[in-house]
Amino acid sequence: MKDSVKRVVLAYSGGLDTSVILKWLQVEYGCEVVTFTADLGQGEELEPARAKAVLMGIPDHHIYIDDLREEFVRDFVFPMMRANARYEGDYLLGTSIARPLISKRLIEIARETGADAIAHGATGKGNDQVRFELSAYALNPDIKVIAPWREWDLTSRTRLIEWAEAHQIPVPKDKRGESPFSTDANLLHTSSEGKCLEDPWEETPDYVYSRTVNPEDAPDAPEYITIDFEKGDGVALNGEAMSPATLLAALNDLGRKHGIGRLDLVENRFVGMKSRGMYETPGGEIYARAHRGIESITLDRGAAHLKDELMPKYAELIYNGFWFSPEREMLQAAIDHSQANVSGTVRVKLYKGSASVVGRKSPNSLYSEKVVTFEDDAGAYDQKDAAGFIKLNALRLRLLARQGKH
Amino acid sequence: MKDSVKRVVLAYSGGLDTSVILKWLQVEYGCEVVTFTADLGQGEELEPARAKAVLMGIPDHHIYIDDLREEFVRDFVFPMMRANARYEGDYLLGTSIARPLISKRLIEIARETGADAIAHGATGKGNDQVRFELSAYALNPDIKVIAPWREWDLTSRTRLIEWAEAHQIPVPKDKRGESPFSTDANLLHTSSEGKCLEDPWEETPDYVYSRTVNPEDAPDAPEYITIDFEKGDGVALNGEAMSPATLLAALNDLGRKHGIGRLDLVENRFVGMKSRGMYETPGGEIYARAHRGIESITLDRGAAHLKDELMPKYAELIYNGFWFSPEREMLQAAIDHSQANVSGTVRVKLYKGSASVVGRKSPNSLYSEKVVTFEDDAGAYDQKDAAGFIKLNALRLRLLARQGKH
Amino acid sequence: MKDSVKRVVLAYSGGLDTSVILKWLQVEYGCEVVTFTADLGQGEELEPARAKAVLMGIPDHHIYIDDLREEFVRDFVFPMMRANARYEGDYLLGTSIARPLISKRLIEIARETGADAIAHGATGKGNDQVRFELSAYALNPDIKVIAPWREWDLTSRTRLIEWAEAHQIPVPKDKRGESPFSTDANLLHTSSEGKCLEDPWEETPDYVYSRTVNPEDAPDAPEYITIDFEKGDGVALNGEAMSPATLLAALNDLGRKHGIGRLDLVENRFVGMKSRGMYETPGGEIYARAHRGIESITLDRGAAHLKDELMPKYAELIYNGFWFSPEREMLQAAIDHSQANVSGTVRVKLYKGSASVVGRKSPNSLYSEKVVTFEDDAGAYDQKDAAGFIKLNALRLRLLARQGKH
Amino acid sequence: MKDSVKRVVLAYSGGLDTSVILKWLQVEYGCEVVTFTADLGQGEELEPARAKAVLMGIPDHHIYIDDLREEFVRDFVFPMMRANARYEGDYLLGTSIARPLISKRLIEIARETGADAIAHGATGKGNDQVRFELSAYALNPDIKVIAPWREWDLTSRTRLIEWAEAHQIPVPKDKRGESPFSTDANLLHTSSEGKCLEDPWEETPDYVYSRTVNPEDAPDAPEYITIDFEKGDGVALNGEAMSPATLLAALNDLGRKHGIGRLDLVENRFVGMKSRGMYETPGGEIYARAHRGIESITLDRGAAHLKDELMPKYAELIYNGFWFSPEREMLQAAIDHSQANVSGTVRVKLYKGSASVVGRKSPNSLYSEKVVTFEDDAGAYDQKDAAGFIKLNALRLRLLARQGKH
Repeated sequence: MKDSVKRVVLAYSGGLDTSVILKWLQVEYGCEVVTFTADLGQGEELEPARAKAVLMGIPDHHIYIDDLREEFVRDFVFPMMRANARYEGDYLLGTSIARPLISKRLIEIARETGADAIAHGATGKGNDQVRFELSAYALNPDIKVIAPWREWDLTSRTRLIEWAEAHQIPVPKDKRGESPFSTDANLLHTSSEGKCLEDPWEETPDYVYSRTVNPEDAPDAPEYITIDFEKGDGVALNGEAMSPATLLAALNDLGRKHGIGRLDLVENRFVGMKSRGMYETPGGEIYARAHRGIESITLDRGAAHLKDELMPKYAELIYNGFWFSPEREMLQAAIDHSQANVSGTVRVKLYKGSASVVGRKSPNSLYSEKVVTFEDDAGAYDQKDAAGFIKLNALRLRLLARQGKH
Repeated sequence: MKDSVKRVVLAYSGGLDTSVILKWLQVEYGCEVVTFTADLGQGEELEPARAKAVLMGIPDHHIYIDDLREEFVRDFVFPMMRANARYEGDYLLGTSIARPLISKRLIEIARETGADAIAHGATGKGNDQVRFELSAYALNPDIKVIAPWREWDLTSRTRLIEWAEAHQIPVPKDKRGESPFSTDANLLHTSSEGKCLEDPWEETPDYVYSRTVNPEDAPDAPEYITIDFEKGDGVALNGEAMSPATLLAALNDLGRKHGIGRLDLVENRFVGMKSRGMYETPGGEIYARAHRGIESITLDRGAAHLKDELMPKYAELIYNGFWFSPEREMLQAAIDHSQANVSGTVRVKLYKGSASVVGRKSPNSLYSEKVVTFEDDAGAYDQKDAAGFIKLNALRLRLLARQGKH
Repeated sequence: MKDSVKRVVLAYSGGLDTSVILKWLQVEYGCEVVTFTADLGQGEELEPARAKAVLMGIPDHHIYIDDLREEFVRDFVFPMMRANARYEGDYLLGTSIARPLISKRLIEIARETGADAIAHGATGKGNDQVRFELSAYALNPDIKVIAPWREWDLTSRTRLIEWAEAHQIPVPKDKRGESPFSTDANLLHTSSEGKCLEDPWEETPDYVYSRTVNPEDAPDAPEYITIDFEKGDGVALNGEAMSPATLLAALNDLGRKHGIGRLDLVENRFVGMKSRGMYETPGGEIYARAHRGIESITLDRGAAHLKDELMPKYAELIYNGFWFSPEREMLQAAIDHSQANVSGTVRVKLYKGSASVVGRKSPNSLYSEKVVTFEDDAGAYDQKDAAGFIKLNALRLRLLARQGKH
Repeated sequence: MKDSVKRVVLAYSGGLDTSVILKWLQVEYGCEVVTFTADLGQGEELEPARAKAVLMGIPDHHIYIDDLREEFVRDFVFPMMRANARYEGDYLLGTSIARPLISKRLIEIARETGADAIAHGATGKGNDQVRFELSAYALNPDIKVIAPWREWDLTSRTRLIEWAEAHQIPVPKDKRGESPFSTDANLLHTSSEGKCLEDPWEETPDYVYSRTVNPEDAPDAPEYITIDFEKGDGVALNGEAMSPATLLAALNDLGRKHGIGRLDLVENRFVGMKSRGMYETPGGEIYARAHRGIESITLDRGAAHLKDELMPKYAELIYNGFWFSPEREMLQAAIDHSQANVSGTVRVKLYKGSASVVGRKSPNSLYSEKVVTFEDDAGAYDQKDAAGFIKLNALRLRLLARQGKH
């Protein structure tokens, strides 16, 4: 017999899997289910999820459908981008960064509805279960968490569908067979993994990609854009002010058109295995490069290098699910402190899969043509200072060499 | 009056600037000059340098011309690539990594010829003076270093040319005017900076690029290649075994053709100013991506993440000129230790400016399809373990949340 | 019913708890038990363990009793000391560093005896279970691990003793009641925790300490000793050459006499909770301070600071049980590289709880009285170099200040 | 001829050296001098400095004498202590942390008095020149800095005294000979270096110590005290609320009495040489240990370990003079973020040179006796969770071992 649960808030997409979970929770736990469906920019209609929930007997006041796009970009994506976070050198953390927001809403809804548990549809092999649950426990240490994929015995597609049919859950025709891969999508990215992608020697087939055109099919002419930043965050595209989500959506359109942001990666999961994922982050890739571009002229070297040293740990924390942890918040405090003057404009060239920074300017620029110039600098820099600078930097190496230590 | 110097080894390219330096050393220091000209793959004839040295009165046995290409790639470029080193997120350190090798030879030649000093043609505003001199002092703490650009008063082009003519140094016609930018080249890269590149808002004009075609002019069809690695180093291209320098040269050809490895960067110099550089690293960019690709399936997560955390410091050390330092060597020892199993084959797609890893395989692969699969894994992984894993990772966060600490 | 196990190697102390485990393995798993008892310098007779194992029916060739003291100090304690490792600022990792060696022998004995499992007596709340098992899995990925404390229901002292008596295991009188705290001991330290130590506001009662006199009872006169180091490892005490274990044992005697190495700490366990421990590391504390002392004159600043930056992670890895991991080995490679010239003599003053370095000398000393002196240094250092050094270090800060960025 | 300077603010102690500097500035630069004398708790009368300045012709409104003790402890010492900063493992940075405050006042006074330069009495071999000047340039990029010790030729004691006498500067009898060592003092510490301390093998003679009794002469009975912390800062001693400077002064008295805080160190200077220093930080040592004590029960592991990893770099920045740098401020932001719940009471035992934490309690304590107990914990922790925790932490190590990679 299961733990006693009175009411559970389920992260509900309206798809077959979470519909089976909804019913299974009702059947196996004998508890009330509250559904929560979030619009994170995944590009799906949400009203069908409401209709399905109603069909499963969920009362209206227990069906939550929230548009979280602005909160997602403003409070999660942008703070992460301030850090130039890339996991294992490349991955822009599109799935990882959405999970803590979903958990935050699950916990809020649990409080509002008096629920004592939450449930999610992540499997027992992946990172998402960890991300959902660490966030949930950090926000409510007494919450119960139900992860059906770790509990039930519906471990093959066939059994899942049999169970669905036995419980009067409609099974769409295209869900009867095995899907060739599994996906996750939000305003920042679409990820695909599993099945046909499991051999890391095989190139990802083009039909897996859904958010970007193939670079080979992208326009033959490059397109130039500008992004304006204020205090480390994007605020305008081509001079037009935009909210965070609007800006990211517009960059997604541009990235799609030019085939930007595809990534084929073998990565290390927190649960200890390697997996192969395919990511499309069209707008995010452009944004990330532009952010580094504006930092390059507005951030002092000391700040910039410290950020680079802290980044791998920061990215790992987000990947592993520790968004709501003291150490992520400490790093964020340091990163945010660095962004006070990261304002200005970046010019980016988009062309067949590439986003290249080709210009940057800022009222806060620390770049000094007067100091750096090959020409006479009128005393802005005394080249003789370099001799002393080198001599003292070399002193310890010379003392070491004198000891014959090399 | 200058310090007394008996004999000086000059890093001599044969160009106008180092020819002026050669003569200036003879005139101002009244000392013998030994010339050292290195083939680092910069793509220039070296025999003209010999002829010019002879004309300046240097005896044959004091003219050194060395082909250092294999040593450069094997002992400097490849070890650095094992670390996935990129300065400030992007720069592949093409100039930085060549300087310690030149200094090493200058010091060796000083020993062989009984010289008590070395000289170089780097200016007082740049990083190269630091790199040359730190390396030199680390290898011979008692060497004298002469940096004419920090000493003389030939601080404008006009004065330099007047001095040259006054001292019978031939001035080629195309050197009479100001060069629109300055360059450095070796087998790894060509860099350009200064003059027409000094406004970071202006896009780099296409004529600055010399090592790569414009991506827009690159072939319309992608090209696929494979690179084989053994213990972290590249050993074959498309199945054909190659020496380090041969492999890098072949990748340069491929990169040139497909417009790969261009980088327009505002960076932070060690001497304290920001500068804008334009880099072309065609083969290096392909190689660097392939190396990360083979690591992705052969390197354990613990090793991979530690490498990512150490990398910014490692890259900074090389950029700043500390190749011959205990701390760079310590990091190298750690990095090299990690590469024992980094062997296998990577497949890379080259297309209009991009080099993308699309496949990787290895006899040492740590990727386990059996463990990661969405299908039944026959007990390779018990999903129930994840519950305990999450619970204990969450424990401290729950204790914190119970204290109302959020 | 338990997993099928054929033969299990048990880490066996001969005490009541592991005797119960031995019998429980025989009864519950119906398997053969091989006993392994290690002399790590814990200061107990080992032959009684043999006698007890014989009584429990273990055949002679399945009773392993090994003196591992030299291996322990040489291959585990000293390499760790090279890193100046202290967990959370203070703890010298006395328990943590012994676990991987025990696991290593368990796995070796399993191979020799054809056993398919190992077992240990660590509880489910502590770090030791993690350390034993991570080491074991790293050395033999297919080994089965039995941790009876996580499996059985003998969760109170009363039930354990009832079970022992029901199975004819002799229960010494002094083991019938609850022990006021639990201890672990080896040549490096004795730790105590639990029960009477569980309130972190209460001072540790003096009767808990067993390895050191109370500083208040230590001699009123200080004692001076010297320790000689070669390549980072201690080799002699007061000029007398000693093996690693002999040296540590001799330092333990000195530390005991002078009340050195007591530590009362609230620490963070890997399993997520805080615990309060009391540690006595008499010889280790003296050795650790002496090692830093010899490094202070023989280690270059770059190496020393890099070591300090890497140390917390290194210590955490050992504390968490990742001795046999690629990342610990990478860090060890870096650390060991740094120790090539860490040779010389350190003079230490021992007095009522303190071990203070008061002198250090080395043929490899990088300390230069000639350079540092307040007196005329005869040109060893040109004070004017400092002006340029400061000017270039300040340049970026001045450019920043000019932007009004403060 | 010197650079043209109109008016210079001099860091003026009133002692012989800075009196010579004052006159030398008047003579050599022909400029007005403004004197600034700070009370940082060095324990000297300041009014004599005023009288001497008047004698040298400085008008009243150009004589600044400020009591900076509270600002020093509140805004410099305490923030640094929040980080548990120790340079090279031991040094509590007593001199380093005072320099930026002095520079801050120098720059403020320069602004108030319309001065275009500042001057200090630090030599060209030490760290203090760097600290003074980096801070000054960071706060006013256009300030001129005069460092007479790097400029003049009064490089021996004899010449300095001759110059003083030739310029009618009174030379106290006890300043005629060479001082056996040089000192710096403030409320945090007294440092001594040079001369009789220059041989690192010789024990520091007892007469060098001025702030602490010899531990051998300290009371034979230990003394117990409590320190209360709020948000990471000390606020009370033995239950009595105190301002920062008052608290530190009271701890200094206690530390002096018990011989606490002596340190004999060979350290690495930023200018590239090793030096030997003797430090006495009586109150600071007690405070630093108490701060770690209160953190041990109130700081989450993630925060604590991140702090430990960042500390060496933070300490190095302060030691090297980069207090007013973006990277120090970023680290401070992270550290300060961590201190929100670092409140409670620590009990410390003082005895013959040692300060040992023996108790700690807090309303914010994260230590849970219920979770950690050896007794039945009523379900607070499920020991079976540990099995899954270990299994997933081991997974990557097992996959690695399967590849025969060990």
